[in-house]
Amino acid sequence: MSDYKSVQELKSIDPGMAAPFRGIYILKRKETRTAKNGNPFLKVELGDAGGSFSANAFGDSAVFEALDPAAEGCIVRISGKTDYYNDMFSPKLSAAEVIEATEAEAEGMLGALVEVPPESEEELWDHLVEGIAAIEHPQLKETVQRVIDDTETAFRTAPAAISMHHAYRHGLLEHTVHMLRACRALLPLYPQVDADLAIAGIILHDIGKLEEYEGDFSAKTSRIGTLHGHVVLGFRTARKAALQSHLNTDLTERLEHIILSHQGEKEWGAAAMAATPEAVFVSMVDNLDAKMGMVQRVLRNANEGDEFSERLMGLQTRVLLTPPDKS
Amino acid sequence: MSDYKSVQELKSIDPGMAAPFRGIYILKRKETRTAKNGNPFLKVELGDAGGSFSANAFGDSAVFEALDPAAEGCIVRISGKTDYYNDMFSPKLSAAEVIEATEAEAEGMLGALVEVPPESEEELWDHLVEGIAAIEHPQLKETVQRVIDDTETAFRTAPAAISMHHAYRHGLLEHTVHMLRACRALLPLYPQVDADLAIAGIILHDIGKLEEYEGDFSAKTSRIGTLHGHVVLGFRTARKAALQSHLNTDLTERLEHIILSHQGEKEWGAAAMAATPEAVFVSMVDNLDAKMGMVQRVLRNANEGDEFSERLMGLQTRVLLTPPDKS
Amino acid sequence: MSDYKSVQELKSIDPGMAAPFRGIYILKRKETRTAKNGNPFLKVELGDAGGSFSANAFGDSAVFEALDPAAEGCIVRISGKTDYYNDMFSPKLSAAEVIEATEAEAEGMLGALVEVPPESEEELWDHLVEGIAAIEHPQLKETVQRVIDDTETAFRTAPAAISMHHAYRHGLLEHTVHMLRACRALLPLYPQVDADLAIAGIILHDIGKLEEYEGDFSAKTSRIGTLHGHVVLGFRTARKAALQSHLNTDLTERLEHIILSHQGEKEWGAAAMAATPEAVFVSMVDNLDAKMGMVQRVLRNANEGDEFSERLMGLQTRVLLTPPDKS
Amino acid sequence: MSDYKSVQELKSIDPGMAAPFRGIYILKRKETRTAKNGNPFLKVELGDAGGSFSANAFGDSAVFEALDPAAEGCIVRISGKTDYYNDMFSPKLSAAEVIEATEAEAEGMLGALVEVPPESEEELWDHLVEGIAAIEHPQLKETVQRVIDDTETAFRTAPAAISMHHAYRHGLLEHTVHMLRACRALLPLYPQVDADLAIAGIILHDIGKLEEYEGDFSAKTSRIGTLHGHVVLGFRTARKAALQSHLNTDLTERLEHIILSHQGEKEWGAAAMAATPEAVFVSMVDNLDAKMGMVQRVLRNANEGDEFSERLMGLQTRVLLTPPDKS
Amino acid sequence: MSDYKSVQELKSIDPGMAAPFRGIYILKRKETRTAKNGNPFLKVELGDAGGSFSANAFGDSAVFEALDPAAEGCIVRISGKTDYYNDMFSPKLSAAEVIEATEAEAEGMLGALVEVPPESEEELWDHLVEGIAAIEHPQLKETVQRVIDDTETAFRTAPAAISMHHAYRHGLLEHTVHMLRACRALLPLYPQVDADLAIAGIILHDIGKLEEYEGDFSAKTSRIGTLHGHVVLGFRTARKAALQSHLNTDLTERLEHIILSHQGEKEWGAAAMAATPEAVFVSMVDNLDAKMGMVQRVLRNANEGDEFSERLMGLQTRVLLTPPDKS
Amino acid sequence: MSDYKSVQELKSIDPGMAAPFRGIYILKRKETRTAKNGNPFLKVELGDAGGSFSANAFGDSAVFEALDPAAEGCIVRISGKTDYYNDMFSPKLSAAEVIEATEAEAEGMLGALVEVPPESEEELWDHLVEGIAAIEHPQLKETVQRVIDDTETAFRTAPAAISMHHAYRHGLLEHTVHMLRACRALLPLYPQVDADLAIAGIILHDIGKLEEYEGDFSAKTSRIGTLHGHVVLGFRTARKAALQSHLNTDLTERLEHIILSHQGEKEWGAAAMAATPEAVFVSMVDNLDAKMGMVQRVLRNANEGDEFSERLMGLQTRVLLTPPDKS
Repeated sequence: MSDYKSVQELKSIDPGMAAPFRGIYILKRKETRTAKNGNPFLKVELGDAGGSFSANAFGDSAVFEALDPAAEGCIVRISGKTDYYNDMFSPKLSAAEVIEATEAEAEGMLGALVEVPPESEEELWDHLVEGIAAIEHPQLKETVQRVIDDTETAFRTAPAAISMHHAYRHGLLEHTVHMLRACRALLPLYPQVDADLAIAGIILHDIGKLEEYEGDFSAKTSRIGTLHGHVVLGFRTARKAALQSHLNTDLTERLEHIILSHQGEKEWGAAAMAATPEAVFVSMVDNLDAKMGMVQRVLRNANEGDEFSERLMGLQTRVLLTPPDKS
Repeated sequence: MSDYKSVQELKSIDPGMAAPFRGIYILKRKETRTAKNGNPFLKVELGDAGGSFSANAFGDSAVFEALDPAAEGCIVRISGKTDYYNDMFSPKLSAAEVIEATEAEAEGMLGALVEVPPESEEELWDHLVEGIAAIEHPQLKETVQRVIDDTETAFRTAPAAISMHHAYRHGLLEHTVHMLRACRALLPLYPQVDADLAIAGIILHDIGKLEEYEGDFSAKTSRIGTLHGHVVLGFRTARKAALQSHLNTDLTERLEHIILSHQGEKEWGAAAMAATPEAVFVSMVDNLDAKMGMVQRVLRNANEGDEFSERLMGLQTRVLLTPPDKS
Repeated sequence: MSDYKSVQELKSIDPGMAAPFRGIYILKRKETRTAKNGNPFLKVELGDAGGSFSANAFGDSAVFEALDPAAEGCIVRISGKTDYYNDMFSPKLSAAEVIEATEAEAEGMLGALVEVPPESEEELWDHLVEGIAAIEHPQLKETVQRVIDDTETAFRTAPAAISMHHAYRHGLLEHTVHMLRACRALLPLYPQVDADLAIAGIILHDIGKLEEYEGDFSAKTSRIGTLHGHVVLGFRTARKAALQSHLNTDLTERLEHIILSHQGEKEWGAAAMAATPEAVFVSMVDNLDAKMGMVQRVLRNANEGDEFSERLMGLQTRVLLTPPDKS
Repeated sequence: MSDYKSVQELKSIDPGMAAPFRGIYILKRKETRTAKNGNPFLKVELGDAGGSFSANAFGDSAVFEALDPAAEGCIVRISGKTDYYNDMFSPKLSAAEVIEATEAEAEGMLGALVEVPPESEEELWDHLVEGIAAIEHPQLKETVQRVIDDTETAFRTAPAAISMHHAYRHGLLEHTVHMLRACRALLPLYPQVDADLAIAGIILHDIGKLEEYEGDFSAKTSRIGTLHGHVVLGFRTARKAALQSHLNTDLTERLEHIILSHQGEKEWGAAAMAATPEAVFVSMVDNLDAKMGMVQRVLRNANEGDEFSERLMGLQTRVLLTPPDKS
Repeated sequence: MSDYKSVQELKSIDPGMAAPFRGIYILKRKETRTAKNGNPFLKVELGDAGGSFSANAFGDSAVFEALDPAAEGCIVRISGKTDYYNDMFSPKLSAAEVIEATEAEAEGMLGALVEVPPESEEELWDHLVEGIAAIEHPQLKETVQRVIDDTETAFRTAPAAISMHHAYRHGLLEHTVHMLRACRALLPLYPQVDADLAIAGIILHDIGKLEEYEGDFSAKTSRIGTLHGHVVLGFRTARKAALQSHLNTDLTERLEHIILSHQGEKEWGAAAMAATPEAVFVSMVDNLDAKMGMVQRVLRNANEGDEFSERLMGLQTRVLLTPPDKS
Repeated sequence: MSDYKSVQELKSIDPGMAAPFRGIYILKRKETRTAKNGNPFLKVELGDAGGSFSANAFGDSAVFEALDPAAEGCIVRISGKTDYYNDMFSPKLSAAEVIEATEAEAEGMLGALVEVPPESEEELWDHLVEGIAAIEHPQLKETVQRVIDDTETAFRTAPAAISMHHAYRHGLLEHTVHMLRACRALLPLYPQVDADLAIAGIILHDIGKLEEYEGDFSAKTSRIGTLHGHVVLGFRTARKAALQSHLNTDLTERLEHIILSHQGEKEWGAAAMAATPEAVFVSMVDNLDAKMGMVQRVLRNANEGDEFSERLMGLQTRVLLTPPDKS
């Protein structure tokens, strides 16, 4: 086990001692402020999957030099000593450097930084690729492939939401693949649903979220996310790819319609109410997997012995965590 | 082809001629009124899958004798002559008799009386029986079997709703079987969902509708339906069977919870918000199949050449009826 | 005065006499049906600004030949004799021909066919052209000009709605010009609002309605209107023109944002909530002119002596029609 | 006056001194945690009617032994010394024992632990007993008596809510008796309301809350409360007693309907809308007394000299506390 | 029994015969129109408690002379012959005269014209007078007395609503007296409620409806009703009387507050949320009696043998009409 | 620059040193409490435009003598030493005196105490006076003048809201003048709107807020604000002035209607829906300027370099702060 300390470990060190430590964290917030003496200093918030803390870096320090150009959402390795200010954990930092996600992973710390789904990224990605391969209509397949080619890096890691369902790294990929599996299981039961359109619609339904959120490890709404919203952004991306792939007008409109209507209700952001068999189907499968994803997550993260989860906003109740008594 | 006339055929006969006809219809409404001379007469509404009309039967006639004791929702065979009163089609009846559904079927008219699903009742029933057989836990299976044994006749024919989805003869059976199929397709993807509970919950989720509605061929809300609602009626039925089958408390509560929560939202009648993996799952599969059932029905009933259906209340839009252009 | 009869005039002719007449009407609905003898016949609804009526055209007639290929929403000149069927006015048609709007205008009947605004189309159009000229930023002006060049014919005549505000011929043009005037009057008071963006946003805010509705004289929602909605259609049109005009990204996003947010609330169809000074401004000016447009219309159409209008859905009350007593 | 210290008294002791104290409190929360050395320790929250505080009990202490098996919601007597940790009052505990409510009462501390209504439990209970006696129909009286016999202990002490009206010890009893009094005062004015059914319905309307909440002195929702809700739980209890008392079907259904509909609106949890004179009546009397109970409570608890209460969620405003000026 | 025919009797006369008749009806609507020959004619709607019909009066007739100056809502006695036009009952009128309500009453026809409550106006009025007498505070009593003195004629006859509860002649008086009775029964239970204010508040709570509605026997919203609403109109009336009676400021504000808040929710028209014990109390008693009034009315008007009423908008369900089975 | 310290300056002084300071603040809250020794002490909250802090004044001190009789919302000058209690800034006060706003202004500190609009009070007031002068109808002008004469002092300084738009000193005056300007710019475009009524309606539309809020520098809802609400209070004020000015009934009702309906929707507090051209117009101009006022304020208060504001409740989004890129 590495000697890097998690936030939870840092906070459990005796407040009375100034213990030296090293750690790898996400730079969640960074603000430049002016001290009484007129010099700038940085107030940073650092965190991992288990918590976060604030610290300051003054203008003439090496830590300031290292963090001043860093972007919110990047990964940093720091050294320092534990300390408290007004009873808040607020360590003194002695060194800092921005590192790549790959290095954090090599150090075995990436998993500790952010919540990830139980299936590996590679496994999920393979299923997505399979999904594309299952589309038979050449231009429709090309449309989807084109979008995925352009967005692969982001698609592999993005969350599916900031605070509701699948709100963690790879969450969008996981949710999309789970919907694909549900789709393929259900298609034989609803022959009115065109398989190609349903699969393409599922893969692209949330593609606008790649632009709506920003920040690799700490998602927040982007400028274009505020101005356009993910539904319209996804529509735009899909439309461009469809035009480049010479998809015929009918299929283009139907594919776009799936994206525009998948939120289900106007007040949840749907630009149109689902009006084709495929759009109704994708919207319902989306809702099914979003809700089941919330259930899966609270079961996965439950503390030993808890009977119920906390109340989940998305389900408007708390979830029973114990297994059925099948005796 | 029989010489029985459908309502649509009757109404297309030249209004100027008093054409004799025979027909088999559902007795949709029956009211006793008093004529100017103080004698009672019946005002009846008769209809089939394609429309309805009103007619009167006076107190001293054979038609009155035949229809006076008949219950709303039964099937009647009538003879009469076409006529109009205030420009409304209102034939003069010369003979009437109540007949059994089996006789209407023998005459090949049952299908014309009421809308039915595309799969046969027998095929659907076999799937339901299979569903029960798939439940492994003995007392849970016994609970479901007990309910089905008690309600088979009604369950085979009841609609799933008065005006929303699957609102036709055998609609409840069809909807339940479609949910079972979806459930069995999806279970491998959501291993957190207990298969036994999900299957039992699906079979029983709408069982209260057998009491909520009344009238064999023309459903309306019953007294107990108004006073209790189908959610509580289903809960009561399932609870009784569970107690008789010695189902353990945990499974009983979870099964009841699926029924109590399946409507999804309190304002749609859910007594509790879905709080177990199985309850969330059944509620979402219910919603998925209800919406897809509306789509399937408008596609099935579409007029040749229509591009869109009428606006559907349950989908808040009209449905595109033409197939995708896969060229 | 022409010898063409308006619908109101036709209906006031003594029902007992079969009076020959000529008239120019809009073909509002057209359905093909099958008569008892197996031949097709047309059931058409014809109307003008003051009412409508139904008539039939049988398969072997000249009227059938003329109307069979006609599109709903076109203008037709007919000859016939007044008649009633089941007390509904339902004339017998002896001749029919589709004519151009220009011919109806030449006959002085266009104004009788459809409601129009008090200002002439030319006057309104001149104001729109002036509005474009007032945009200073070259690429922004080019973007707007490009859209208007592509849509002029439709923009000149389209209604601004099917049933709410400015729901009549030239209504979109009138509403847009009224918003432009309000905008130019208000801009000096809100210097935070960029004039170029506000003007461009106003001209293009409802441009998607040109695709959302179809039918020259009898608007209904088009296929793409159902699948995409006017907000997204307008976004698409503006975006394409902006790209072709090499408008910079910032202005493109802001212009698109005005269109995406102008409906004000998500449940009224806004894809995003207004988040720039210009978007808030355009959305509020839109709401102001829509509501004032309803007031102007009921005042314009009020019957002499009425104290109040009917209840208006869009205002949730009836409007006081009498002028203030300034004595 | 006893030497037990209330929470408010403890917190007003000079933070600088470690003052020894004894006290009787409710064990509101109890969590088991693991210390850095791997040993378990308890984090407990203790409180009374005036506040609460946290304290720790380590694994090898007598306090740990005493509190480890204690249930949340029980009453404990502790000894300790005042202390602060991170400026939060967090005393060091030296002894603890679980005691019965009767002992707390004997020590004169029960009233300080929990809020209680102004009327004594005995007085309220006598009125409830009188209410039952007033039911004339033998099986209906037996039904109610049976439920009350089975639940007396709980019914005497349960609150009527967790956070809305009558949310304190004996609150359910108080609310029920107040409704009974209102009912008997109003019955002569509404002769359409059957007195027996109204009285029985009032006594049983919230009976499900005995199962919905758990914890003697610190109510929270139980497992079955989450899964079924108090409306269905009350229905079940009443139904069972009615069956055992051989109550006829009509009265059973009407009694059940009162319970199922008393919440008034579906989104507030009503399973059916009130559809009998008695159900409408009970639902309105319930609403009346719930709202008046909120008013009575804020008047009772008002600080001398306050003109208004805090804003009450249940009334959507603040309440004027001063008496009318009748000069 | 008089020889005047009710509307129902007129409509049951054989359509084929032109039967002479006399009748007393309310003039519900009156519109002046222009006939083809340029002469004015009246189109009137006449009705009683059981229905209504239209008839025309041409410009040169005695009937025209009699009805032209008549106000909508007045009572008329007509003679004529039964006739049908387009299958609508539309008699030919030969004589008409406006008569006073007292004359209609003398003829024993007033009760047939309009629905009235079961208690007599005199009895209800006596209770109102008693209510005023029970107010002890001199200026408060004077305030109420002053309003009642000014409005007695209208108060005695006005309905309490156009379409919801107590929507019939004397309905406001009946509802007010029923609330007074409920108030006096409940006051001993809620001693926090000042009796004087509650009684005064109840008597005046709906006083604004006397101005909000107009038309003696056929209420519709008046001009000031549309512009101000009954809540503000009632406030204005009460305030004026309070000032004239030198009621102190505190009681004036509290009395006004009861009127302003009695509708309960802002979207139902409350200007403020009830924030005094009296205002909460009056608002809840209002709601109780409004709902019970709907129940009483459907029970009173039920047809022999009906199990359920029609669905009532105000209760969101249908009402069970049969008495409980107390066997 | 004065030696008075702002709250922000006080809080940035090194917590370790007890620095003497002087300051001018608003007395935001004042509560009397009882210390352990039985003596009373004051807990006061003092603040300025940039923040606030708490301090205590014990019963036997000069500070207590000075602040005990002071009203919440007045201005005080204090001396003291910086100090912290439980890590909260909580200075020790050595002297205090209540001062007039004029003195605070003379010391150049008024602007630091409260947020004010960019235009000066005098400039805004001159525009209001001009607005009145523009009313041509003598009695209408007199009505408005009378109200303004009676309320000038309050009108000049009151905020337009507690927490939504224009929620700062002079905010009501600024909002009213901005609406007047918008009105005069728009009137030529909507000739159906009577200028006199629109101007009078705008000046008086929020006049009730002068009574709804209280506290010169720290607005909170008054007793009458809770009991009546600003809509009814404004109605009352306008009505009284109209009666005194002998304004005719028609104009009085229309002016009152503008005030009663300006909130736009019943759930936002409108007593009636806007039903005259002037009322619709004023209500829409109010909404326009309220929303634009929120935009102007966040732009004015934006931190250098921020791209977006915080999320604004009133706009349901965050506002883009950067200017358009007009390159």
